[in-house]
Amino acid sequence: MHGTSSPEFALPLAMLVIFGSAKILAEVCERLSMPAIVGEILAGVLVGPSVLGWIEPNEFLSALANLGAMFLLFRVGMEVKSSELIRVGGTATVVALLGVVVPFAAGWLLMAAWGLPQIEQIFTGAAMVATSVGITAQVLASKGLLAERSSKIILAAAVIDDVLGLLILAVVSGMAQGSVNYVQIGITAALAIGFTILVALLGTRSMTKVVPRLGERLRLSESQFSFSLILLFALALLAVYAGVAAIVGAFLAGMALSESVEERVKELTHGVTELLLPFFLAGIGLHVDLHTFANLPVLALSIVISIAAVLSKLVGCGLGALSLGKVDAIRVGVGMVPRGEVGMVVAQLGLALHVVRPDTYAVVVFMAVATTLVAPPMLKLAFRGAGTGEQEVAEIS
Amino acid sequence: MHGTSSPEFALPLAMLVIFGSAKILAEVCERLSMPAIVGEILAGVLVGPSVLGWIEPNEFLSALANLGAMFLLFRVGMEVKSSELIRVGGTATVVALLGVVVPFAAGWLLMAAWGLPQIEQIFTGAAMVATSVGITAQVLASKGLLAERSSKIILAAAVIDDVLGLLILAVVSGMAQGSVNYVQIGITAALAIGFTILVALLGTRSMTKVVPRLGERLRLSESQFSFSLILLFALALLAVYAGVAAIVGAFLAGMALSESVEERVKELTHGVTELLLPFFLAGIGLHVDLHTFANLPVLALSIVISIAAVLSKLVGCGLGALSLGKVDAIRVGVGMVPRGEVGMVVAQLGLALHVVRPDTYAVVVFMAVATTLVAPPMLKLAFRGAGTGEQEVAEIS
Repeated sequence: MHGTSSPEFALPLAMLVIFGSAKILAEVCERLSMPAIVGEILAGVLVGPSVLGWIEPNEFLSALANLGAMFLLFRVGMEVKSSELIRVGGTATVVALLGVVVPFAAGWLLMAAWGLPQIEQIFTGAAMVATSVGITAQVLASKGLLAERSSKIILAAAVIDDVLGLLILAVVSGMAQGSVNYVQIGITAALAIGFTILVALLGTRSMTKVVPRLGERLRLSESQFSFSLILLFALALLAVYAGVAAIVGAFLAGMALSESVEERVKELTHGVTELLLPFFLAGIGLHVDLHTFANLPVLALSIVISIAAVLSKLVGCGLGALSLGKVDAIRVGVGMVPRGEVGMVVAQLGLALHVVRPDTYAVVVFMAVATTLVAPPMLKLAFRGAGTGEQEVAEIS
Repeated sequence: MHGTSSPEFALPLAMLVIFGSAKILAEVCERLSMPAIVGEILAGVLVGPSVLGWIEPNEFLSALANLGAMFLLFRVGMEVKSSELIRVGGTATVVALLGVVVPFAAGWLLMAAWGLPQIEQIFTGAAMVATSVGITAQVLASKGLLAERSSKIILAAAVIDDVLGLLILAVVSGMAQGSVNYVQIGITAALAIGFTILVALLGTRSMTKVVPRLGERLRLSESQFSFSLILLFALALLAVYAGVAAIVGAFLAGMALSESVEERVKELTHGVTELLLPFFLAGIGLHVDLHTFANLPVLALSIVISIAAVLSKLVGCGLGALSLGKVDAIRVGVGMVPRGEVGMVVAQLGLALHVVRPDTYAVVVFMAVATTLVAPPMLKLAFRGAGTGEQEVAEIS
């Protein structure tokens, strides 16, 4: 009933090219003893506008990427008990704070030393703040390492980091527009912090009351899974309302359900995540424009900023976790390195406000992708010898 | 790191509203002893432009709906052995042929009797031809009835029906544009038939050689599932190239894998289908515009055409399957009733070619939705007492 009309055609083509190339390069990376996730990001660079030009970023693919990130954090949340996360809350707060201050200062000072405009110094600093927890979470989950103490600190610190990043972004974009409304920012902060703490504290308790009874109460097939998805979308939406990222809401939803859903719900969620995750990972690669780096000064600055981005998180977060001993401090520091798509969002805002020039935008994108690509091998090294035999967790890999 | 900017916000909102309303109305329908699927379609009418206006149809949602239809047919294909489908091929061909001729004639004659222009008579007839197998497949799968002989005839006939519908659409749109290229149509037909037969014949055999070895050969985690998804997207794409619907390719991919993949792959696929199916079902409802039916003659014609659409498939397909006895003939006839989104595609083409007026388009949409809504309860009745204890199949419900 259908000709070769454009949308009928474009959908299976995009699905095949992105999913297929991601899985092929993941296999190649595994054979080279590199993390599969690196291959999936590089697949986006390969099929995207920079190299083959088979796929252009579009609204559908970016929505699929966002859904993929949500399901990734939802699945990771399902493996984490909120009580354990709250227990490491103190250390995680110190890690998050130092992990924000040191990279921000490093970005600001380096851009100032390079002689760039003050507003670009501040925006670059802000873009270096936000950890993209998805990458680390995927590496830890696939290696069965979510039960490690350092993994829990990374996850808790990344949630706090998201709230801090929100505040810095509010201040910085206020500066770009000429005025900073501190009262408004105070309200935003209170809302974001209140939402996160409330859900983390009450989520698990209320779900253990509701979820086990769904099967008897509802006639719907797969009632636990349907309920879990509704909770996921509802908390993702509330999180955006409260000012934090949708993926933080997704993570909190997973955590709220972690002690009450049946194993089957985790399996079905795993199926969705396996389909969508390559779109999140390749989506990061799709936004890379290699042509910008033919400009040597841009390339040089990109490399300097990327090295600073890695070291500043490593030092900042590592210092914050030093009380746990050197090994765990390094693990936490490495786990907070990837900036992923979050840094790009900051730079895009600066671009939209006409205070960040395309060259500086390219530098930030390079930094975001470079930190994301180096983190998985670094994590593999840092966690060598850790957590074998975590059967339940390893199963989701 | 994110404000309440539009896309961050729109994605979880759309997911929550559509998935949530579909599941709530599904539960309501189950309690009223109606099929859940009816509730999910009505959810689209409810949240769409006609009633609440919370959700507008858009490209992302329609892509998600198309993916949902693909995964539905893929999952159904996984429960069907190609050898069994080929065995019923003869009967299925007669069913498909009569199920095309009788509704086409009925639509044509009724519209002529109503005094509408000839080209609209023909387009309406063409829109009444194509069975939307998704609805029937979902009802049969959820009740564990895919192993019934009549179910297999329905599936095989629906695949043949899609090829016949393609040819009729080619002829009809040629007529609308003033010339019919029969050579071109002959080539199209040969390609579509050749692709379908080839994959049905060779798919299973080649997959039983390849799939069981994937685990040892590849280092990728979930290698069987990844491979299955790549096959799904590849055959969906090839199907569109060959001129048949993407969902036919998805069905053939599932069938090719049915005898070789592990149970786990079916579970993971089931997770994806559970997420996406409500978007396919509610998507049908989203396109309904209730305001058109304030016009009484349009409403009257819509009801007449809908009754004719039900009866003509029932009679045509039932006659084709009469050799199997009355019970199976009725089951097959009822199973071919839903027109779903396929009839709408034909009418949209007529609209785009300016040969179908909006009123006639509304009549076709009404017919497509009405046949889709009445089919599940009719199927429930027709299959009463059939196929209990089909454990393996029932599990996916």
